[in-house]
Amino acid sequence: MGVLSSTELRQLIFALEEIISLDNEGKFSIAIEQEDCHTAIENYLTGKLGDAGKKIHACRSRNDQVIAALRLYEKEELREVGKLVRNLISAITNFSSRNSGIPLPGYTHLRKAMPYSIGRWAESFSESLQDDILLLDSVSMLIDQNPLGSAAGFGVPIFKVDREFTARQLKFGRVQKNTLYVQNSRGKFELAILDALNQVMLDINKLATDMWLFTSAEFGFIELPKEFSMGSSIMPQKVNPDVVELLRAKAGVMKGHRDSINSMILNLPSGYNGDFKLTKQPLIEGFELAKSCISIMTLVIGGLKVNEGRCKAAMTPELFATEKALELVKKGVPFRDAYRKMG
Amino acid sequence: MGVLSSTELRQLIFALEEIISLDNEGKFSIAIEQEDCHTAIENYLTGKLGDAGKKIHACRSRNDQVIAALRLYEKEELREVGKLVRNLISAITNFSSRNSGIPLPGYTHLRKAMPYSIGRWAESFSESLQDDILLLDSVSMLIDQNPLGSAAGFGVPIFKVDREFTARQLKFGRVQKNTLYVQNSRGKFELAILDALNQVMLDINKLATDMWLFTSAEFGFIELPKEFSMGSSIMPQKVNPDVVELLRAKAGVMKGHRDSINSMILNLPSGYNGDFKLTKQPLIEGFELAKSCISIMTLVIGGLKVNEGRCKAAMTPELFATEKALELVKKGVPFRDAYRKMG
Amino acid sequence: MGVLSSTELRQLIFALEEIISLDNEGKFSIAIEQEDCHTAIENYLTGKLGDAGKKIHACRSRNDQVIAALRLYEKEELREVGKLVRNLISAITNFSSRNSGIPLPGYTHLRKAMPYSIGRWAESFSESLQDDILLLDSVSMLIDQNPLGSAAGFGVPIFKVDREFTARQLKFGRVQKNTLYVQNSRGKFELAILDALNQVMLDINKLATDMWLFTSAEFGFIELPKEFSMGSSIMPQKVNPDVVELLRAKAGVMKGHRDSINSMILNLPSGYNGDFKLTKQPLIEGFELAKSCISIMTLVIGGLKVNEGRCKAAMTPELFATEKALELVKKGVPFRDAYRKMG
Amino acid sequence: MGVLSSTELRQLIFALEEIISLDNEGKFSIAIEQEDCHTAIENYLTGKLGDAGKKIHACRSRNDQVIAALRLYEKEELREVGKLVRNLISAITNFSSRNSGIPLPGYTHLRKAMPYSIGRWAESFSESLQDDILLLDSVSMLIDQNPLGSAAGFGVPIFKVDREFTARQLKFGRVQKNTLYVQNSRGKFELAILDALNQVMLDINKLATDMWLFTSAEFGFIELPKEFSMGSSIMPQKVNPDVVELLRAKAGVMKGHRDSINSMILNLPSGYNGDFKLTKQPLIEGFELAKSCISIMTLVIGGLKVNEGRCKAAMTPELFATEKALELVKKGVPFRDAYRKMG
Repeated sequence: MGVLSSTELRQLIFALEEIISLDNEGKFSIAIEQEDCHTAIENYLTGKLGDAGKKIHACRSRNDQVIAALRLYEKEELREVGKLVRNLISAITNFSSRNSGIPLPGYTHLRKAMPYSIGRWAESFSESLQDDILLLDSVSMLIDQNPLGSAAGFGVPIFKVDREFTARQLKFGRVQKNTLYVQNSRGKFELAILDALNQVMLDINKLATDMWLFTSAEFGFIELPKEFSMGSSIMPQKVNPDVVELLRAKAGVMKGHRDSINSMILNLPSGYNGDFKLTKQPLIEGFELAKSCISIMTLVIGGLKVNEGRCKAAMTPELFATEKALELVKKGVPFRDAYRKMG
Repeated sequence: MGVLSSTELRQLIFALEEIISLDNEGKFSIAIEQEDCHTAIENYLTGKLGDAGKKIHACRSRNDQVIAALRLYEKEELREVGKLVRNLISAITNFSSRNSGIPLPGYTHLRKAMPYSIGRWAESFSESLQDDILLLDSVSMLIDQNPLGSAAGFGVPIFKVDREFTARQLKFGRVQKNTLYVQNSRGKFELAILDALNQVMLDINKLATDMWLFTSAEFGFIELPKEFSMGSSIMPQKVNPDVVELLRAKAGVMKGHRDSINSMILNLPSGYNGDFKLTKQPLIEGFELAKSCISIMTLVIGGLKVNEGRCKAAMTPELFATEKALELVKKGVPFRDAYRKMG
Repeated sequence: MGVLSSTELRQLIFALEEIISLDNEGKFSIAIEQEDCHTAIENYLTGKLGDAGKKIHACRSRNDQVIAALRLYEKEELREVGKLVRNLISAITNFSSRNSGIPLPGYTHLRKAMPYSIGRWAESFSESLQDDILLLDSVSMLIDQNPLGSAAGFGVPIFKVDREFTARQLKFGRVQKNTLYVQNSRGKFELAILDALNQVMLDINKLATDMWLFTSAEFGFIELPKEFSMGSSIMPQKVNPDVVELLRAKAGVMKGHRDSINSMILNLPSGYNGDFKLTKQPLIEGFELAKSCISIMTLVIGGLKVNEGRCKAAMTPELFATEKALELVKKGVPFRDAYRKMG
Repeated sequence: MGVLSSTELRQLIFALEEIISLDNEGKFSIAIEQEDCHTAIENYLTGKLGDAGKKIHACRSRNDQVIAALRLYEKEELREVGKLVRNLISAITNFSSRNSGIPLPGYTHLRKAMPYSIGRWAESFSESLQDDILLLDSVSMLIDQNPLGSAAGFGVPIFKVDREFTARQLKFGRVQKNTLYVQNSRGKFELAILDALNQVMLDINKLATDMWLFTSAEFGFIELPKEFSMGSSIMPQKVNPDVVELLRAKAGVMKGHRDSINSMILNLPSGYNGDFKLTKQPLIEGFELAKSCISIMTLVIGGLKVNEGRCKAAMTPELFATEKALELVKKGVPFRDAYRKMG
């Protein structure tokens, strides 16, 4: 584009690598008056290289830089979440195979309904998580758009920025064409990401709720690994399932993060608004929350034991009422008559 | 499957068509003690045909029937929403073409930033809506699963239900295999749908906010069609943009619907819970809300006028400060020096 | 104020009573182009009385009329909710007296903790509801402010409206002085009301959850009245506690209503905004929801039976571990040593 | 109660003060396996004093200790918030006095409505904040209940704990009688607190939105103090009102905190649940957020300048249309005729 000479370019690349090294050693700091890393970097480069440093901000704004950095981060995190979900699916599949033959009462309304099995109970979660990946992939595709060159939301005048080129360099799937849309998608994309993570958390919430219920003395179908249980400070006998309660509650925290982002971006006009700065924290906390919950649930599932005796003892006759009615149907009795007879 | 004779099947089909006719005439009613249409239909068929009516509930539960009906409804509504979004995109594109040459100040932080145009402003919304379709399509794919044969969540004993067959008959893309997952996806799928509709509502919210701001006397860039303005009961001079305020506020209502569904399904164990009955209302209201808002916004855009004079008058010199700075850069001045000079 | 003659006043009062009669008979209708009842009433009066009708809107706006009507409605509904909450407290107290001697295991983390009783379990809810009344009373006091005379938010020029007088006439506790604040409190007051109702719904949610758990076969401490149970269409043996599941889920619906109102009013500037029209529906639905849930819970509690045998059988030794430890403490053993010994 | 000798008591008080000193110097640490400060303190005391340390946990649970500590913290924070709100009211009153004579157009629907003034605009916020104090006081009264002696939710057996005594010692207004209610109020009380803080944040949100709008070049009625403005990295001319945008957005963050707590506590049965651990973070973040926003808004108001020229110039004729109509009414013209004439 004619902004930097090739010497300046080499100098800048070298100095940027220096910054990375300094940062790795915790020696690169951002002064309050610099506001953010972008100004700090420019100042460092200018201090070291003079004019070459002063040139780096030609044709770009902190706005499109921040969004580009955020998208690269989001893409990487979504990949990581996908990997962790697949690990959890594997752990569930292993658990299911280990215990596939064991019967389990199926419940509706928390009342015994019909016979089921430990294996199929577990598989209900792996199939659900598999579908979550569909949504994670969609949102990955949605956000995989190059914002660079949109500058403050209205593009770059005078110079012609090759946005396809920077897209290829940064491995973005496509260019986000309308430069104002780049700004208007702030918060909106972050919300779409958390909506997808939330679907994973809903599975974890339900699995944790089942574990909480099924590990109780009254149900007793499964047992948590000992290392995941906690005691009480006053009651000597207690073995508490805090880990699954915390996993359960984290779905509420994720919901709060979505709420924050969605609330902040309502009723704001087009273009960058300072409010967008605050969408980052719930996004990042949402990723951290999802990753840790998926990982911990994978460990819990890995150590989960089934109490086969309790499961078998729970297979009481009322669970087979529908089966009995359908046996009559097989013999020609209309279903509703068979149903009444069994009732 | 050997439940119905071919005579019974013919009789049932005929009687079901009778029910449809009665219902169309508003003459098919559901008694309170019948709880829902499923029992009412069975009772009608039994009253008319005797044993054939009593047989229809073999191998199925209201649970999987309700979900199947709901999914068919959801698929149709999502198609309809997609169509309406495409109409809105067309209306925006037409508006953009009609007014493409007119300049518009670009704002960040509600402060003049850089030059933009009416055309590109409008296109920021059409590109965003285009991306919403990606999410609508994903969720359509997600829910396009046949729940029939899952019965109350634990499948059908004794008889072998061909779930691939019913999937083909009802045009479901695939079978939702795990029968417990069918129940566990209740609320979760509905939330995924509203999450996608919410993305559309966020665009409408921002477009409405822009319209509210830009039609004010202080900005004055655009004018709402007269038939969308309302007066005041006390102030003779007022012309109020209620329509865009209501469109804006509806995004908050949609948010409330999502909140309802998400809140209801938290901390519930596997299997059908009576709570799920209440997820239907926010879903249906969410669809109705989205469809009417998209349609009304399409009408508003269709009648929107641009005040070219005000737009041109607003293109004040500060908007060109960045351009001026970059002209200096073109001549070799380092960007930060050019920036300071222009500042 | 010199706007109406005493003859006109009498004519207007007479005609307004006519409107009330017509409305009671369902014969007073509002045409679409009249927008709301205020214009319809003025038109009716003008049609009948001529100039006297045209005079009624002097010194007032639909804005302050709507808010005044809304506040009177809110005050009445809050009184009604308070009455219903007191009824529920009575029903709980009666239930508690009837069953006070029956033991109940106390649970933490859904694990048996220490001995408790049916009576004290029930009283935990009546004490909580009693505290809810404190919040209901506070919000009643908050909103008990006369908005009349604020007109469109900027008061009435030329004429001097005696706002203290209309406050006394309409039995408002005080005048909401700043006229702009009258508008700015829209949505905000409605949210404060729903926040208070929500606290009641949280109690109902927890009581319903306990009922759902304790009526299960695995716990079996209590039994729902038969008339509140529902069957299954496929499973002959089922007796489902839909009523408590629906009561439980309604807390999620209330949460959604609060979310709607709060979301709508964010990021809006001072003064009336058309968005406020949409805060009425969630408010009214919130009142209806709260009233019906409190009433139904009162009926459920009234018919609730305790299964004394199951309660007594559940008082297993581990519940007394803390008691045993404290007996040792009584004898001088340091608590932590006694705890370890019992563990 | 006969648990500690007076020597042991003196030793414990001395050692506890030691812990406070250590903690102030950052030298008191909690090991992971100790879970929390309660166990760490007991261990420290036991290490130092032997049996006296082992005795301190007689008749109490971490549960009621945690709640007692939390309530003391909440009471103090609520007092602090009340103080800061009063400071903000003072700042607004000062600003209002300084600028009381300056006219300001009153807006509805963001359209000029009727004349108002800078002073009365500002007072709309001080009156609203005054009402918020009513809600803050109510919630302070609600939570001012002594939980000590409730232990794990089911009281203390064997020993008789004098709960009125500890209430007086810790300056709690009353005893929370039902011990299970102590646990059941967890999350519920925290939500009531955030609901009250949220009302303050709604005022700050609206005031910030007004500032954002009124400091724009298009309105121009007020000017932010220079030290609260930020620049742009690419646009030399920009002076951005980030501070009010961040204040505005924080209301969305507060909303998210409320959502987290409310979501977490839904559908949980009576008694302590591990989920409650996660209600602390949104509570504490909610207090920090409210305190900092109120303080910063107080600073902003303190430095806010009014552009009297712009205000006066904006008092255009249409603002006086209602006044003119009412002048005709004064002369006997029926209002609706006067309204039509002015229109």
